[in-house]
Amino acid sequence: MTKTKKFLLTDEQTPKQWYNIVADMPNKPLPPLNPKTKKPITKEEMSVLFAEELIDQEMSTERFIDIPEQVQDLYKIWRSTPLVRAYALEKALDTPAKIYYKNESVSPAGSHKPNTAIPQAYYNYKQGVKHLTTETGGGQWGSAIALASQFFGLDLKVYMVKVSYNQKPYRKLMMNAWGADVIPSPSTTTQAGLHALAQDPECSGSLGLAISEAVEVALKDPSTTKYCLGSVLNHVLLHQTIIGEEACMQMEMAGDEPDIVIGCFGGGSNFAGIGFPFLKKNFTEGKNIRVIAVEPSSCPKLTRGIFQYDFGDTEGFTPLLPMYTLGHDFQPADIHAGGLRYHGAGSIVSQLLKDGLIEAQSVPQLETFAAGLTFAKTEGIIPAPESTHAIAVAVREALKAKEEGKEKTILFNLSGHGMIDLFAYEQYFAGKLQNYDLPDEVIRKSIDKLDKIIK
Amino acid sequence: MTKTKKFLLTDEQTPKQWYNIVADMPNKPLPPLNPKTKKPITKEEMSVLFAEELIDQEMSTERFIDIPEQVQDLYKIWRSTPLVRAYALEKALDTPAKIYYKNESVSPAGSHKPNTAIPQAYYNYKQGVKHLTTETGGGQWGSAIALASQFFGLDLKVYMVKVSYNQKPYRKLMMNAWGADVIPSPSTTTQAGLHALAQDPECSGSLGLAISEAVEVALKDPSTTKYCLGSVLNHVLLHQTIIGEEACMQMEMAGDEPDIVIGCFGGGSNFAGIGFPFLKKNFTEGKNIRVIAVEPSSCPKLTRGIFQYDFGDTEGFTPLLPMYTLGHDFQPADIHAGGLRYHGAGSIVSQLLKDGLIEAQSVPQLETFAAGLTFAKTEGIIPAPESTHAIAVAVREALKAKEEGKEKTILFNLSGHGMIDLFAYEQYFAGKLQNYDLPDEVIRKSIDKLDKIIK
Repeated sequence: MTKTKKFLLTDEQTPKQWYNIVADMPNKPLPPLNPKTKKPITKEEMSVLFAEELIDQEMSTERFIDIPEQVQDLYKIWRSTPLVRAYALEKALDTPAKIYYKNESVSPAGSHKPNTAIPQAYYNYKQGVKHLTTETGGGQWGSAIALASQFFGLDLKVYMVKVSYNQKPYRKLMMNAWGADVIPSPSTTTQAGLHALAQDPECSGSLGLAISEAVEVALKDPSTTKYCLGSVLNHVLLHQTIIGEEACMQMEMAGDEPDIVIGCFGGGSNFAGIGFPFLKKNFTEGKNIRVIAVEPSSCPKLTRGIFQYDFGDTEGFTPLLPMYTLGHDFQPADIHAGGLRYHGAGSIVSQLLKDGLIEAQSVPQLETFAAGLTFAKTEGIIPAPESTHAIAVAVREALKAKEEGKEKTILFNLSGHGMIDLFAYEQYFAGKLQNYDLPDEVIRKSIDKLDKIIK
Repeated sequence: MTKTKKFLLTDEQTPKQWYNIVADMPNKPLPPLNPKTKKPITKEEMSVLFAEELIDQEMSTERFIDIPEQVQDLYKIWRSTPLVRAYALEKALDTPAKIYYKNESVSPAGSHKPNTAIPQAYYNYKQGVKHLTTETGGGQWGSAIALASQFFGLDLKVYMVKVSYNQKPYRKLMMNAWGADVIPSPSTTTQAGLHALAQDPECSGSLGLAISEAVEVALKDPSTTKYCLGSVLNHVLLHQTIIGEEACMQMEMAGDEPDIVIGCFGGGSNFAGIGFPFLKKNFTEGKNIRVIAVEPSSCPKLTRGIFQYDFGDTEGFTPLLPMYTLGHDFQPADIHAGGLRYHGAGSIVSQLLKDGLIEAQSVPQLETFAAGLTFAKTEGIIPAPESTHAIAVAVREALKAKEEGKEKTILFNLSGHGMIDLFAYEQYFAGKLQNYDLPDEVIRKSIDKLDKIIK
């Protein structure tokens, strides 16, 4: 008799509500501020950029929020996603730890991003919005919102960070196949882009800058055009909790409970998705599950940034958000994990970290690729460069368990596959990838600049 | 209450045996012949190229063959694959037909090919083989056997048809990531390759020629090296029946039964995989399910070829197989469905067609891409160019049902996703793709040549 490896839910079992962690947080996240008045931003002010129901979710303190039926129907295309016991990885590491992963790579866009893209497109469509603008780093978000916009007949313009635009032509084509217009950022189509190019014509872009461009375009015609974001904001994290809500049920099916839950960390969406429903167990069932966010050591806002109000974008168009940040014009190194090249963390995650309710670790690029290949060779799935960060810490913790001779149950989120990122692996094989030292003074300089701008 | 869309089996429910259709065929397939003696090829002769247990399966008349536990364990990485009710596609076509698809694109290599790659690598490993050689067209088979070889520590050399090698660099990189050596065919590493290049230095290759190269290399050291094939042969088709065995159970879960089952057709493996278990119902339960093979109109061996003994490869290294064929040196047009550019059909499928137990249709390239995009826009999954052929006939049959005002249940196999084939879609959008006329005289010429060679 072979061992059960994979746990799935039927369409009927799949959760029908998202989990809003704000309801259970001992200290609620600080509100976003209007940069001019420094007062909490109002619903009216936000409605220039976002659909009404998304703003309600952004500000909600309800514990559970119903998933609309049309969204449930579209989730069924690929959800539930498998929870898998990684026997082969465990064996390769010769660890007493049990390792599970939640496989979000099985979505049509290849990552967890459609979990929020679909409700975002839905609520905008419902409100009569015709055009959406957004940014994308590695292209995971851009392809997800292209897919979702297609379902609801919305026109979409995507500003794609230039370094990824060049590294990942297939991602661009995927967005085109789903009908989106894709523009490399910085571009000459916006003031923000022109400004960045004037300062550095070779600028490879950043998520923060691409956000500036997308927001600028949306603001030109707020009556028919809205902006949407693939991470950071509360409503985005909310939608991703479908991951962890499923995983909680699936771990029960497996007759197990994780001691450690791990997600890679860019703006916080896949981390929140896998982590928050397990934090709920800490809050409400007195459990003591460690929940770890993993960031690249070249973009270490959680482990080396400071907690303060900062802009979400490079140019300062967004509201001020309370966040762990490296400064909004911090320019991260050109690592292949494009989705993790973001200067700040969402306000909920930042508050949780400040309160010691979650942990953070950073991992250098070469360690992440080594872990990713170990995973590809044992479990058979080539992971996205972003996801290799979560794998790397799963490997660290599994080896620590071995050293300590302890049984431990580890769960990580495989946020996406790497089929569109194979050139990164080619460069790794060729020895062309590197780690990036990030001296304290570089971070200090970027943060000091911040203090002068934001009083 | 939203509608159930997706049907899955648990690890425990997933079938533990493959179905061998030979046991139920009214006329058994003719045996492969030794090209020199014209006598049925012996097990000993085949063992130069293939592992013993694979040859046993090739010749078996047992109805069911147990799936080894190690193979079952690896299947669990992605199996069972979802059976999905395509509500959105039905709605877009405004058809009374119910359309289901079996989603084989969820495997780590993105297609159905690992279903046979894993047992093939397993049996070779078990026998102590160290090196494998093979060919690949679109790259689906090559990446699948790379994955499988990696699991069992086998060294692998893949001859990849040059047109695909150039069109699909990511497929090559995927094979590299799983440790395989990939060589564009025709190459200068074999006599067969040199011969083809001498005749036409610009030759874009074909599956038949790549087979010649891979077989030539394997024959150099049969004690440690074996050849393996991703389609055509009986044991390959056998392994793929896991698809249809699952689908039969899943259609029952859906409370439905197909009137029509559709698979695209290159050498026959995904077609057999979805189709044979439903033919079993025709044979043993008196059902009358139509099973349709779909080929490109530019490579129409089933609809315009002849039934006779022919070589499996271009150079004439393989045994003679009874097949519907266009002649073994037929050079198909450079369509994007690389996996369907093969001159012949496997002997089981050929016998079934000859006996009127299955049907065949051919579809021109532009119709397949149009159908593929309709599917991508409605069901959200970008299909492989090969798979769009099955979709095109599902669309034809659904529209026919509408015309006739008939309820019909259609099931097709989505053999793979198109994430690695996005350049094909880009060319389609740009109006650069075409249909290919294939005059009767071209086919006749190729077949006439055949008659001179094979008496």
